[in-house]
Amino acid sequence: MSTLVVVGGDAAGMSAASKAKRDDPELDVVVFEQGEWVSYGACGLPYYIKGEIQSLEDLVSVTPEEFRQERDIDLRTGHEVVDINPSNRTVTARSDEREVVQEYDHLLVATGSEAVTPPIDGLDRTGVYTLGSMSDGKELREYVGRARSTGDLQQPDRGPACQFLETCNGPVGIVGGGYIGVEMAEALAANDFEVHLFQRGDRILKQFSTATSETVLDHLEEQDVAVYLNTEVRELAGSDAVEAIVTKDDRVPVEMILVGTGVRPRTNLAEDAGIELGETGAIATDAYRETNVPDVYAAGDCAEAEHVVTGDPMYIPLALTANRHGRAIGQTVAGKPTKGGGVAGTAAVKAFEVEAARTGILDHDTAQKAGFEPITETIRAKSRAGYYPEGGTVQVTLTVDGPSGRVLGGSLVSEYGEGAVHRSHALVGAVSEGTTVDELSNYDLAYAPPFNTTWDPVLTAAKVVDGTR
Amino acid sequence: MSTLVVVGGDAAGMSAASKAKRDDPELDVVVFEQGEWVSYGACGLPYYIKGEIQSLEDLVSVTPEEFRQERDIDLRTGHEVVDINPSNRTVTARSDEREVVQEYDHLLVATGSEAVTPPIDGLDRTGVYTLGSMSDGKELREYVGRARSTGDLQQPDRGPACQFLETCNGPVGIVGGGYIGVEMAEALAANDFEVHLFQRGDRILKQFSTATSETVLDHLEEQDVAVYLNTEVRELAGSDAVEAIVTKDDRVPVEMILVGTGVRPRTNLAEDAGIELGETGAIATDAYRETNVPDVYAAGDCAEAEHVVTGDPMYIPLALTANRHGRAIGQTVAGKPTKGGGVAGTAAVKAFEVEAARTGILDHDTAQKAGFEPITETIRAKSRAGYYPEGGTVQVTLTVDGPSGRVLGGSLVSEYGEGAVHRSHALVGAVSEGTTVDELSNYDLAYAPPFNTTWDPVLTAAKVVDGTR
Repeated sequence: MSTLVVVGGDAAGMSAASKAKRDDPELDVVVFEQGEWVSYGACGLPYYIKGEIQSLEDLVSVTPEEFRQERDIDLRTGHEVVDINPSNRTVTARSDEREVVQEYDHLLVATGSEAVTPPIDGLDRTGVYTLGSMSDGKELREYVGRARSTGDLQQPDRGPACQFLETCNGPVGIVGGGYIGVEMAEALAANDFEVHLFQRGDRILKQFSTATSETVLDHLEEQDVAVYLNTEVRELAGSDAVEAIVTKDDRVPVEMILVGTGVRPRTNLAEDAGIELGETGAIATDAYRETNVPDVYAAGDCAEAEHVVTGDPMYIPLALTANRHGRAIGQTVAGKPTKGGGVAGTAAVKAFEVEAARTGILDHDTAQKAGFEPITETIRAKSRAGYYPEGGTVQVTLTVDGPSGRVLGGSLVSEYGEGAVHRSHALVGAVSEGTTVDELSNYDLAYAPPFNTTWDPVLTAAKVVDGTR
Repeated sequence: MSTLVVVGGDAAGMSAASKAKRDDPELDVVVFEQGEWVSYGACGLPYYIKGEIQSLEDLVSVTPEEFRQERDIDLRTGHEVVDINPSNRTVTARSDEREVVQEYDHLLVATGSEAVTPPIDGLDRTGVYTLGSMSDGKELREYVGRARSTGDLQQPDRGPACQFLETCNGPVGIVGGGYIGVEMAEALAANDFEVHLFQRGDRILKQFSTATSETVLDHLEEQDVAVYLNTEVRELAGSDAVEAIVTKDDRVPVEMILVGTGVRPRTNLAEDAGIELGETGAIATDAYRETNVPDVYAAGDCAEAEHVVTGDPMYIPLALTANRHGRAIGQTVAGKPTKGGGVAGTAAVKAFEVEAARTGILDHDTAQKAGFEPITETIRAKSRAGYYPEGGTVQVTLTVDGPSGRVLGGSLVSEYGEGAVHRSHALVGAVSEGTTVDELSNYDLAYAPPFNTTWDPVLTAAKVVDGTR
C-alpha cells in the first residue's frame, strides 16, 4: 500500500488529496495542515468582511470532518510540518501534543504563500491588518462590526471623501493597490468608512493594462475612495494604536490600516530539504508539477509554473492554478500521469460597480524578452446592442506580436454585469492556442442584442489591432 | 475607375460597401436596396415590439443619408434588381420611375432570406403575422399597441395561462419554437398577452442541446406560456380575421398569430444568372466568399459557408456572419484578398429571465457523418462562488469526439445575467481551433467569487466529459 503525504491543506493540497483518493481508493492519503481551516475560499474574505457573507464557515467548501469521513483522508489539522527528509522519504510534523514522523511514497509540498512585509515602520501597531488567512478575515470583520456599531459619533472630523455620506466611519488606510487593496476598498466603503488607498507605483492593478487601471482608478475616485499614486508609505504612526499614515508629503489620519502589498511563496521547508527553487523564488516544477526531488511535487502559491505564451516559469499565485495543479498531481499519483497545464496569468476583480479581467502577457518588457514585438491597442465599445435598453461600455486592451499577429494578452473592464470578465474567456483560448489576431477577429462569437453588438467588443478590438499591424 | 455593385442593403451588403469604400476611396460603390431601410438590426425587432425600444429608427445603425453623405456610397433604396448578367457584367434594377442598367467590376449578391411558408391553411387571414422585415415589426408593434389600449374588457373569457395575471390581452398564438418564437413569446407575454406556442418537433430551440431546450421550455412554462410540442398546426381558422389555431387534437382560440417557422435563402436572382447553389440550397462560395462566377461574391442570409468543425458547407443565416463576410469581401475588392472565415453556428437567445448560447456541432448525426464518434454530457454548476450572495445555475452541455477528445460543440443556459452567453466565448475558440477537451479543462480562465466558482462551469463540464472517455 502506497502513501501520499500532503503538506498544506488548502486548494492545491486538498485537491490533490481528494483526486488521488477518489481515483485510487487503496492509496493512503495523509494531509498535514498547520491551522484549523482547510479548503477555504480566501478569495471570499473581502465579501465576508463587507458583510455579504454571514459566516466564515460559508467560505469552506468541504469541512475537515467531510474530508475525514466521506473522503477517507487522514487530515491532521493543527500539525506543522517542520522537516522533510527525502533520503528517508519522511516528513516530521509537530502538533501541540506530539511530534510524528510520517513516511511517504509521494509527497506534495503545498505550503502556500505569506504576506510580503514592506519596509515600513509601525507595522506592529494595533489596528494594522493583513488579509491572508481566515483568522485575518475574522479580525477584520470584528473591526468593521465594532466600528459600525459605535461609528458616527466618535468621528467628529470627517475627511473630504466622506462629506457626502450620511453616516461615515473611518478614516481607514489601505497600503497597496492590487486585488486585495481594491476589493477591500469596496468592502470598507460599503461599511461607510472613508477609505484612503496608497499605491507606490503609478497605477493600481498593475497586472492589468494601463487603460484598465485608469478606468478602475476613475471609478474608485467616483466612489469617494481617495487614491494616492506614486506614494511610498514611510510610517504607520501612532502610539500603541495606529493613528496616521505618513508619506513623504503627507500625514493622513486613520484609525485602521490594511496592508496588502502582495505575497511571496512559503519555501523554507522545501529549501531545507534540498528542493530547488526557480528564478522567481518559488519552487521549480516540471510539466507534471514534480520538483527536482523524485516523487516530490509542489503546487499552489508556493510553486512557479511555465507561462502558456512565453514558456518561461512565472510566479502567479492564483486559486484556479492551485486547484488545477493539485488535481493533476492527484491523478498522477493515482497512476495516470497528468500534466498540470501552464498558466496564462488570468485574473478577475470586482471593484464597486466595475469588473475587470486580464490574461496573458501585457507588459512589453516581458514580451520583448520572450522574443516578441508587442503592439497594444485599447478600444471602447458598447456592451449590448446600441438600441437595447440596458447596457454600458466594455473597454478592451489587446497586446499582440506585430510580425506574427499572435495574441499575447488582453485586459478588459466594464460596468459590473456588462461582461468584461466572462468575455475574457474568449481571449484565454486565443492566448493558450497561439491564435493570431486575424483568426480571433474571425471567431464566430455568440451574438444577440441583450448580450453584445453584432461584433462583440473582443472582435472589435481584434479588428482594430489587426488594422495597425 | 472600378465599380463594386451590391444587391441588398442590409448587414452583408452595407458592411462590404462601407469597408470597400473606406479601404479604396477611388472605388465606385453602388448599392441597390429594394426597400427603404438599410443596415437595420432585425434582431432587435422583438424588443421593439415588446416596447423596450421606442422607435424603429433606433434599430438603424447608419442611415441611408449617412451612407450617401459621409461614406460616399451610391445607395439607391427603392430599387429592385431584376436581372444579373455576368457576361455583360451588368445588373438591371427597377424603381417606381425607371429601369437602370448598371455595370460592375465586382458584384456582391446579398439578397438575404425570406420566411419559409409552412403548409398551413389560412396564412392569409387578417391577424397572421411574420417577422422578417422592419415593416413586419411596425405592424406587430401597432397590433400590440391597439390590444394594450383596448385590452381587458374585450376579453371576458381568459385561458388558463392567463388566470394569474392582473390584466390580460390575447390569447395569441406563435407557430414555431425557434429564436423568433421564443423571443416573441417574451415580447407578447410582457404585454400581458396569453401566449400559446406551437412546435412541430419534440423540443424548442432545436439547434441547442436537448438539455438546454428542456431548461428553456421549463422556464417558458413557469412564465405561463402554453407550449404545445409535437404539434403540427393544420389551419389558422376564422373568417376574414383569424380566430383559432387548429391542430389534430385541439382548437385553440386566438386573436393573432405569429408564424416563425424559419427562413430560406433568397436565391432566384442568383440562380437565373447561373450562380451555383450548394447542397444546402443557398449560394455556394469559396473561402473568399466568391461564387462560381468570377468577381461575383455572395454573403449573408442568401449564402452558405463551411463549418469550422466539419469543413462542410452549412446554411446558418446569422447576423455576425453576414457582417464578417461582407467586411472580408469589401477588403478583397479594395485590393487585399481576405478570407471570410467559416461558421461555428454560434447563437444566443434571451427568453424571459434565462439566457442561452450554443456553438459548434451538437447533433450526433451530423458529427458522425463528419467522421466523429460524439459523446455528450451535461452538467449543472453554480454561476458564482457558492458563498457569494448573488448567483444561479449554469447548465453546460459539451459534445466531444470520443477517440480524439476534440471539442465539437457546446450549449449553455443560465438565468439572465448569470453569464451563459458570454461564457460560450470560451467554447468558440475551442471549437474553432480543434482543441481537445483535456486542453480545454486546463484553460486558465478568469476566476473571482462574483463571477464563478474556482472552476468555471465550462471547465467543470470539460473535466466531466473527459472523465467519461
